[in-house]
Amino acid sequence: MAATKTDMLMQVLRDRIARRALGPGDRMPSIRRFAEQMKVSPSTVVEAYDRLAAEGVISAKRGSGFYVSNSNLPPMKLTPAGSPQTRNVDPFWVSRQSLDAQPGAVQPGCGWLPEDWMPHEAMRKGLRTLAKSDAATLTNYAPARGSLVLRRCLLGRFAEESLSATPEHLMLTASASQALDLICRLLLRPGDTVLVDDPGYFNFRALLRAHQVNVIGVPYTREGPDLAAFEAALAGAPRLYITNSALHNPTGATLSPQIAHRLLALAAAHELTIVEDDTFVDLEPEPSPRLAVLDGLNRVLKIGGFSKTLSASVRCGYIAGRADWIEALVDLQVATSFGGPSPVATELLAHVLTGGGYRKHIAELHRRLAGARKAVAAQLAPLGITPWTLPRGGFYLWCRFPEGTDTGDIAQRAMEDNVMLAPGNVFSPSQSATRFMRFNVTQMSDPRAHEALAKAMAA
Amino acid sequence: MAATKTDMLMQVLRDRIARRALGPGDRMPSIRRFAEQMKVSPSTVVEAYDRLAAEGVISAKRGSGFYVSNSNLPPMKLTPAGSPQTRNVDPFWVSRQSLDAQPGAVQPGCGWLPEDWMPHEAMRKGLRTLAKSDAATLTNYAPARGSLVLRRCLLGRFAEESLSATPEHLMLTASASQALDLICRLLLRPGDTVLVDDPGYFNFRALLRAHQVNVIGVPYTREGPDLAAFEAALAGAPRLYITNSALHNPTGATLSPQIAHRLLALAAAHELTIVEDDTFVDLEPEPSPRLAVLDGLNRVLKIGGFSKTLSASVRCGYIAGRADWIEALVDLQVATSFGGPSPVATELLAHVLTGGGYRKHIAELHRRLAGARKAVAAQLAPLGITPWTLPRGGFYLWCRFPEGTDTGDIAQRAMEDNVMLAPGNVFSPSQSATRFMRFNVTQMSDPRAHEALAKAMAA
Repeated sequence: MAATKTDMLMQVLRDRIARRALGPGDRMPSIRRFAEQMKVSPSTVVEAYDRLAAEGVISAKRGSGFYVSNSNLPPMKLTPAGSPQTRNVDPFWVSRQSLDAQPGAVQPGCGWLPEDWMPHEAMRKGLRTLAKSDAATLTNYAPARGSLVLRRCLLGRFAEESLSATPEHLMLTASASQALDLICRLLLRPGDTVLVDDPGYFNFRALLRAHQVNVIGVPYTREGPDLAAFEAALAGAPRLYITNSALHNPTGATLSPQIAHRLLALAAAHELTIVEDDTFVDLEPEPSPRLAVLDGLNRVLKIGGFSKTLSASVRCGYIAGRADWIEALVDLQVATSFGGPSPVATELLAHVLTGGGYRKHIAELHRRLAGARKAVAAQLAPLGITPWTLPRGGFYLWCRFPEGTDTGDIAQRAMEDNVMLAPGNVFSPSQSATRFMRFNVTQMSDPRAHEALAKAMAA
Repeated sequence: MAATKTDMLMQVLRDRIARRALGPGDRMPSIRRFAEQMKVSPSTVVEAYDRLAAEGVISAKRGSGFYVSNSNLPPMKLTPAGSPQTRNVDPFWVSRQSLDAQPGAVQPGCGWLPEDWMPHEAMRKGLRTLAKSDAATLTNYAPARGSLVLRRCLLGRFAEESLSATPEHLMLTASASQALDLICRLLLRPGDTVLVDDPGYFNFRALLRAHQVNVIGVPYTREGPDLAAFEAALAGAPRLYITNSALHNPTGATLSPQIAHRLLALAAAHELTIVEDDTFVDLEPEPSPRLAVLDGLNRVLKIGGFSKTLSASVRCGYIAGRADWIEALVDLQVATSFGGPSPVATELLAHVLTGGGYRKHIAELHRRLAGARKAVAAQLAPLGITPWTLPRGGFYLWCRFPEGTDTGDIAQRAMEDNVMLAPGNVFSPSQSATRFMRFNVTQMSDPRAHEALAKAMAA
């Protein structure tokens, strides 16, 4: 059957309602005016309105015309209202449970180091120094791109990684997550398609949900994304690919130079922009290939922060990328946050980063982490839990459980013992990581972690 | 002429491109598939594609079909690329010029106090105390709603204003601007309509531009928004009204109890949500009516921060509102920033706020500000510049210039002397404040401010 003009009119109106050109509660255009505008007869408009009303998309109010139904688009809802079971595979599960943990909780599922692994003495010293700084630092806004001291310090670190950039290529943000959020606001529109790794960092998906985009997961291998799957996904004309190259979260895998190179060639051929999250850079004992370095900040935006090795309390992230994008991102940050991170925060970070003790702290971290990874792998083996790969650095072990295990169930049970775990499916857009779990090896020393895990597996 | 099916097909496609269901560079649906989907003949699709290609909306690639042109929707651009003249009335003008001021700039246009008016000694003391706090405060994330110490401190202050709220009604954010941004993300969709004051705070408009909504200005009188205009604007079914009630920015006017009450009644009748920005609360010598208090956090969300009286360097804001909205806003903040403001920041703020010296600092500020408002009004009078109203508190004077003056021109000229002014139209959605300017009376003591102003007016 051929579409009638009424069908097509209905489609136009549905599209307008979907993109909220007509919002909930809005009065529909008057029949006469809309008929003139669309160059159809008023009776065609009446028929379209009647049929949309029958569908519940709009509703008639006696004597005053048609209105868009309020049920079409509720306020943005990121999480289903459902039961704990449905929250199980929710990308928010790990973050909310770990940020708002009960007192005394054990958190092998969380994404940070215990406080006694962090350089708090250097922080204390930095705070005492900051207490002597000038009044402007303590009470004024930072420049729109953020403190120049910290930007220079970052540019120096980039140069060590063979990434040459100037201050125009760099801005500071309130966190690495906010860095990604600003990029998504600049480059994405609702309905766009974005590629992420499967498994990959759960908060990428939570954030992308807030942007109302379609997320496609690309299987992640021990050497980087599966290129055949990546190439196939390019047919969906994605706008962005978001990844961690160094010490991939959750697997701890490392991108190989070959895959890095071919990935960039594919991205260039398909005009794809890449966001490379380099949050784990300081946890790598030996540097690995970086997309941003190979590409020279052309189509790759590099983001990062300081929460993994310095402090998650002092919030600060950064974006490095094309100067024109950075300029537009700075405007966006001014509009939405009125400036970047606190000068108090950035001075403190610069103080610790440039202090002599930071490199020593990092070397010591590498040593302790290598020991902890080995110890936890040994501790998990008797339970039939084995690492999928042995990461070169960092604090994650991505582990496979015995056949038939649902790590979501295990995480739910362990919660009853106040042990917070990170079940595989929170990392998996395709929900194909039921038998996997991410362990933070630095949060496993409390015997309750192992006890709760063994108990939950036995249940 | 009646619309043909081709016309309507073109409209469907334009709508899809506008909402980026089809994005720049995307291949258009195949002719056969799209004809089937839309129940039209392939020749109708071909005609629609040809005509859209003639308009430049899509383009044909030899042998491979039609693609959406890249020019349709560039990355989000918040500012016109134009000349300094067009930047003149840009809502970003004041923020970017003042955040990135040249060294030695005089800034009567900025929105903050000079550093020597701020409690930097209390800050120094707070930093020294913070240096002794536990390692977790220095290196861990805050709970998702932010530090309980600072939330309790805020709830105590709310109670003094007769606003009773519990911890579930309150969350901390990275800044007051970010508080508003999160609310807009939760409640608005592109194309929605939002009411703001005219004149009103320029960054509300910059932020709303990032949300791609329609902004309608409601004239602001000496007692609050003009209710007749407000009521008329309700016909456009706005979703939000954003305002400052206490010491309205830029006018310094105070909302009257009568207007507050009638405003809330209108909002209730039209299911309008109100955001009340209470950033200037501590600069009010005597409390004035608050929408959030009258309404009891039902349809009013209250936001604020600490940048005006404590520190703009330590970034922190808050949102108080309905518990279910706060819960959804917390999810949004976790997704987009991974948690709220730094515990280091919030502990420092709580330390200063609860310290004995803060009330004394505020009393002293009120005294100095009253003197500065009077002095600056007297200083401006000989130039024919007169305050529109005499504010009860705060640091702004909204002033009228002699007939025929364009304050945008004056601000441009003063920039040449490194004096940054805030011309009226950056505050005016209707661009009807050509003869007005906002002065920050605390930034006028440098004689260059008056000299540059007199020189620019004489030119």
